Amino acid sequence: MDIETRRNADPDHWKLASAIRILAMDAVEAANSGHPGMPMGMADVATVLFRKHLKFDASAPNWFDRDRFVLSAGHGSMLLYALLHLTGYKQMTIGQIKNFRQLGSITAGHPEYGHAEGIETTTGPLGQGISTAVGMAIAEEAMRAEFGADLCDHRTWVIAGDGCLMEGISHEAVGLAGNQQLGRLIVLWDNNDITIDGRVSLSDKTDQMARFAAAGWRVLECDGHDAADIDRALTEAAKEDGRPVLVSCKTIIGFGAPNKADSSKAHGSPLGADEIAATRKGYGWNHTTPFEIPEDIVQSWHEIGARGETPRKEWQSRVDVLSADSRDEFARRISNDAHPELAKTVAMVKQQTSEEQPKLATRKASENVLAALNPLMAENFGGSADLTGSNNTLTPEMGVFSPENRTGRYIHYGIREHGMAAAMNGIWLHGGFRPYGGTFLTFTDYARGAMRLSALMGLPVVYVMTHDSIGLGEDGPTHQPVEHLAICRATPNTLTLRPCDQVETAEAWEIALSENDTPSVMALSRQGLPTLRTSHSDENLSRRGAYILREASGGKPAVVLMATGSEVEIAVAARETLEAEGTPTRVVSVPSMELFRAQSREYRAEVLPGNTVRVAIEAAIRQPWEWLLLGERGNEAKSAFVGMEGFGASAPAPALYKEFGITAEAVTERVRSLL
Amino acid sequence: MDIETRRNADPDHWKLASAIRILAMDAVEAANSGHPGMPMGMADVATVLFRKHLKFDASAPNWFDRDRFVLSAGHGSMLLYALLHLTGYKQMTIGQIKNFRQLGSITAGHPEYGHAEGIETTTGPLGQGISTAVGMAIAEEAMRAEFGADLCDHRTWVIAGDGCLMEGISHEAVGLAGNQQLGRLIVLWDNNDITIDGRVSLSDKTDQMARFAAAGWRVLECDGHDAADIDRALTEAAKEDGRPVLVSCKTIIGFGAPNKADSSKAHGSPLGADEIAATRKGYGWNHTTPFEIPEDIVQSWHEIGARGETPRKEWQSRVDVLSADSRDEFARRISNDAHPELAKTVAMVKQQTSEEQPKLATRKASENVLAALNPLMAENFGGSADLTGSNNTLTPEMGVFSPENRTGRYIHYGIREHGMAAAMNGIWLHGGFRPYGGTFLTFTDYARGAMRLSALMGLPVVYVMTHDSIGLGEDGPTHQPVEHLAICRATPNTLTLRPCDQVETAEAWEIALSENDTPSVMALSRQGLPTLRTSHSDENLSRRGAYILREASGGKPAVVLMATGSEVEIAVAARETLEAEGTPTRVVSVPSMELFRAQSREYRAEVLPGNTVRVAIEAAIRQPWEWLLLGERGNEAKSAFVGMEGFGASAPAPALYKEFGITAEAVTERVRSLL
Repeated sequence: MDIETRRNADPDHWKLASAIRILAMDAVEAANSGHPGMPMGMADVATVLFRKHLKFDASAPNWFDRDRFVLSAGHGSMLLYALLHLTGYKQMTIGQIKNFRQLGSITAGHPEYGHAEGIETTTGPLGQGISTAVGMAIAEEAMRAEFGADLCDHRTWVIAGDGCLMEGISHEAVGLAGNQQLGRLIVLWDNNDITIDGRVSLSDKTDQMARFAAAGWRVLECDGHDAADIDRALTEAAKEDGRPVLVSCKTIIGFGAPNKADSSKAHGSPLGADEIAATRKGYGWNHTTPFEIPEDIVQSWHEIGARGETPRKEWQSRVDVLSADSRDEFARRISNDAHPELAKTVAMVKQQTSEEQPKLATRKASENVLAALNPLMAENFGGSADLTGSNNTLTPEMGVFSPENRTGRYIHYGIREHGMAAAMNGIWLHGGFRPYGGTFLTFTDYARGAMRLSALMGLPVVYVMTHDSIGLGEDGPTHQPVEHLAICRATPNTLTLRPCDQVETAEAWEIALSENDTPSVMALSRQGLPTLRTSHSDENLSRRGAYILREASGGKPAVVLMATGSEVEIAVAARETLEAEGTPTRVVSVPSMELFRAQSREYRAEVLPGNTVRVAIEAAIRQPWEWLLLGERGNEAKSAFVGMEGFGASAPAPALYKEFGITAEAVTERVRSLL
Repeated sequence: MDIETRRNADPDHWKLASAIRILAMDAVEAANSGHPGMPMGMADVATVLFRKHLKFDASAPNWFDRDRFVLSAGHGSMLLYALLHLTGYKQMTIGQIKNFRQLGSITAGHPEYGHAEGIETTTGPLGQGISTAVGMAIAEEAMRAEFGADLCDHRTWVIAGDGCLMEGISHEAVGLAGNQQLGRLIVLWDNNDITIDGRVSLSDKTDQMARFAAAGWRVLECDGHDAADIDRALTEAAKEDGRPVLVSCKTIIGFGAPNKADSSKAHGSPLGADEIAATRKGYGWNHTTPFEIPEDIVQSWHEIGARGETPRKEWQSRVDVLSADSRDEFARRISNDAHPELAKTVAMVKQQTSEEQPKLATRKASENVLAALNPLMAENFGGSADLTGSNNTLTPEMGVFSPENRTGRYIHYGIREHGMAAAMNGIWLHGGFRPYGGTFLTFTDYARGAMRLSALMGLPVVYVMTHDSIGLGEDGPTHQPVEHLAICRATPNTLTLRPCDQVETAEAWEIALSENDTPSVMALSRQGLPTLRTSHSDENLSRRGAYILREASGGKPAVVLMATGSEVEIAVAARETLEAEGTPTRVVSVPSMELFRAQSREYRAEVLPGNTVRVAIEAAIRQPWEWLLLGERGNEAKSAFVGMEGFGASAPAPALYKEFGITAEAVTERVRSLL
């Protein structure tokens, strides 16, 4: 069908959609950088969605019961910015659109969560949006089950491209959504048959409809440039039947650009002045000034932006008639405030921990802490990537979230570390829950893409990473993290917590669950560890990042031993030998380098004085320790690191610690050679 | 069907399969650790495969034209070890089986490549095996196209479990294999309906047959405990029709264990003495001594191990009649020897590089180097995860590998970073090619799982990682690596190379392509950079890891500026200012920290003398620089780092460098404050 016919089929729709296309073309041209093709291709679908289906109120972007809209194909950011601008989101001014991709603007190259209201999540790394949306849909189901459809009753809409559907993470998300029967999740697939390298068939011939159907999805199709057909498909999609929905929207990338449409030339670079002029002409768009939108079109779009005002007010009135208690709890939950009794409960667990108790793995200690917190904190939403019994993440009263039990607060995510991480991002972004999820620390590798987005967006998701060193033993080097603590510590805005016993584990959970803008990685041991914190001070000492766990005799250390997690036991044993030999030795426990770095220089110097021998012990690589070993100190100090230099091996844990020389004997020997 | 009926259906088969099960049960019991359920469940399928279908010769494990067998469900390692032992692989003695999961044994918890002949690849992290196998099948097609079916004519067989099929990477591998019509790839799915957390339905209800069919695979089924039915299915699977094949083998985990079969209790822990005794009884196995296999069964298995002797000798006679030249080239290729003219060609590129030439991105310089090398090195096998034009990885004469063109040496991997990395591991493991593949450095995150296996296995795969800093500009923080150089440098046995101009880029390629047991990560700029190596010495200075690029006036530096890649230009500019101010300033280029660390202490002290101010400049985080800033030096030195402290932003690159203070001015200021 030619452009002319399209234009005349529904002139009102045509004008609305053209406005999006004009803004996208012009913004990319002005920035001399960006992706015009996708917004131009999906403008019709997005127009019908916002005009007739999406529940939202541009004047109240954070209204809790809005539909969530996720642009998974984040390179098409101008589609989202144009929609936000045209429907009247206050922050998204024409000035911001004109400053697309410029320093300090809210209109970044890819949509960045936190830059502007209406951006529900950061997208750009392909596949993340659709996978995050699964978490949003999970949270919607769970909140509706808990608080009722009067307070929570909305859908999650996603626009995804071929790239999103090719990425592995999409498989995990699609499988999870299908299994959980997330009937209010609707994915609109920009089926334009183009990737950066050329036709999709260069790299993929998957029948996507059959693929989604195989995972338990309902699949629909529409002509992505026919407003009536799009409306029919979206109407059908919104009729819930317990299956998530894929709508294949057949589109043309760069729709209307005479020389670049339907080719990768329209994908990722400006069209150029001539092509833009020709495209304007084809659209029947008579306004040649860039960014100019005629008043009548602006008006029509603003009316669309106000569609949700009435339902929002009705929702507010339902909130207003709640009992004070219910309203307060609902308000607390959707504002993600920390639980008022968190600190008290953690203090209780600390008090109950005895130095006399048998050795206890910190993963088990973590379960003990969760057993105390989860009954209290209805917002805690747990899960594991098929390692429930190993990660110790399930406490009995949670119940398992499933299509049959929407009040369950624990998810069997399946063997899907990446999908789990992205879903947790979505659960937090939706609001109402604090997600945590478990796997082995080494499988950070599988979840990295989404873990980085937790950090970039500042979402306090908790990663429960057990089996955190060679201490896991026989499973061998594929399962033994060596570089992963360094990786987590290298990632900006990520708290890496490696507690040494139940007291520190409780403190670590307190820190993680009171965070509001930083994710936590909890590194926990498989093997049993002694209780080392002999005084259960009310103060959360782990919050200092590092602190004196055992003081040197006389308070004047000649040697400072630093260690984390399972290696603190080794430091304490080495200290005993050294002290017996007359060497005043201090042990510093370092549950979190990030928190220690944030302390005052004075405190750091107090804990790690100059002119001592310093030895760090951690069953991992040395890289993150250099600053503690070498930095901020007097000149005569000498230092050593006792840890791993390469990959691990398969053997019982004690044999491995001996083999790799991570023992109290090795530490004392190194100290003696340095003294 | 009960055990009794199974036993009597085919007593010869039953005895062979029972021997596998006995060894698996007994080894896990002796180790008090491991996974008996999977080997017991898949013993029948594996027995039929090795007895009737797999082309191999236990006396010549590295015979090039053998079928490849990949145990993707690596936790079932005892299945593989039992098969290798029973068929007579010399290294896999009964002593090794008895030492399962013990220090120094070749029978690690998961199969480790290099530990024993017959282990084709390291598996354990789920999904890696099936994805690596795709690379093996690609290499087989390409070698057959190049050298003919007389020399290369074999299949790739995979055993995969539910975990492998749930992982995202499997989606990428399945899509790639379907698109490439790898008709000789056959995946045997251990369809036992059990994961660690319980029934598969807890987390997944995907119709796997429909899913694989949607991706262009042929799908077959069999009763995984009926030898005749398995044989029928494998025979059918081996009839090539251009589609890869999935065979769903319906099995029972822990088959025959009266109280633990068909449950997750059989998955990951020893069965216990009583259960083992009862299982032996059910099998009709009268030998109660652990690990005892009757001589007649040993004999039958050895005959199976010798099945391939004749075909192997026939193959050898075909090799022997080749012309000397053809035979030499074939031998060179399958032994993965470096190309004899590599050094000469690199030297030529270096000579052709002029300091007068316009600025050139190192990704473009990399293309120039490949343009010189690829016509020469028929073993170079390139590709990109749908960023061909951005990664500059395709040179014209390579041709695109596809079902229609098996002599192409370039793959459009699609938007599948993880699948690409695993496929590259498989291509190298198969033999005949040196794979390299491109994506953006930040998408290291997506490929980490397979990149770690490159390092662990010691495979010299080359990762061409362009857009290696905020220098990529407008795409913003999701696309700007900040922690990824630290991640690569933290990973054992990984060479991170960040060249500063075309000369260093050529040297980096020489290093990467002459490696035989270490993968390389090539970090390349998007933005143009000047030629800085003004003397084109024949010596590959990058091999030293760090070297003096600009000497301080008088040869006595007061200041040493260290930098990599795109920031070396900044160091050189800062030096000019400082020298003009009378401060003798040296610039050290650091293309590879790993290589510098491997230098002698003397050389390192020569390059980085004590008692100077040291400033490092890199548009990334500080963590990997600490040892160079703080270590191995005199006491009076002072140091600073000019780089990134958090995530990047969306803006043109020059604006970002200014915004984040990574400029020559910032460097000179820091130096002045330290002097």
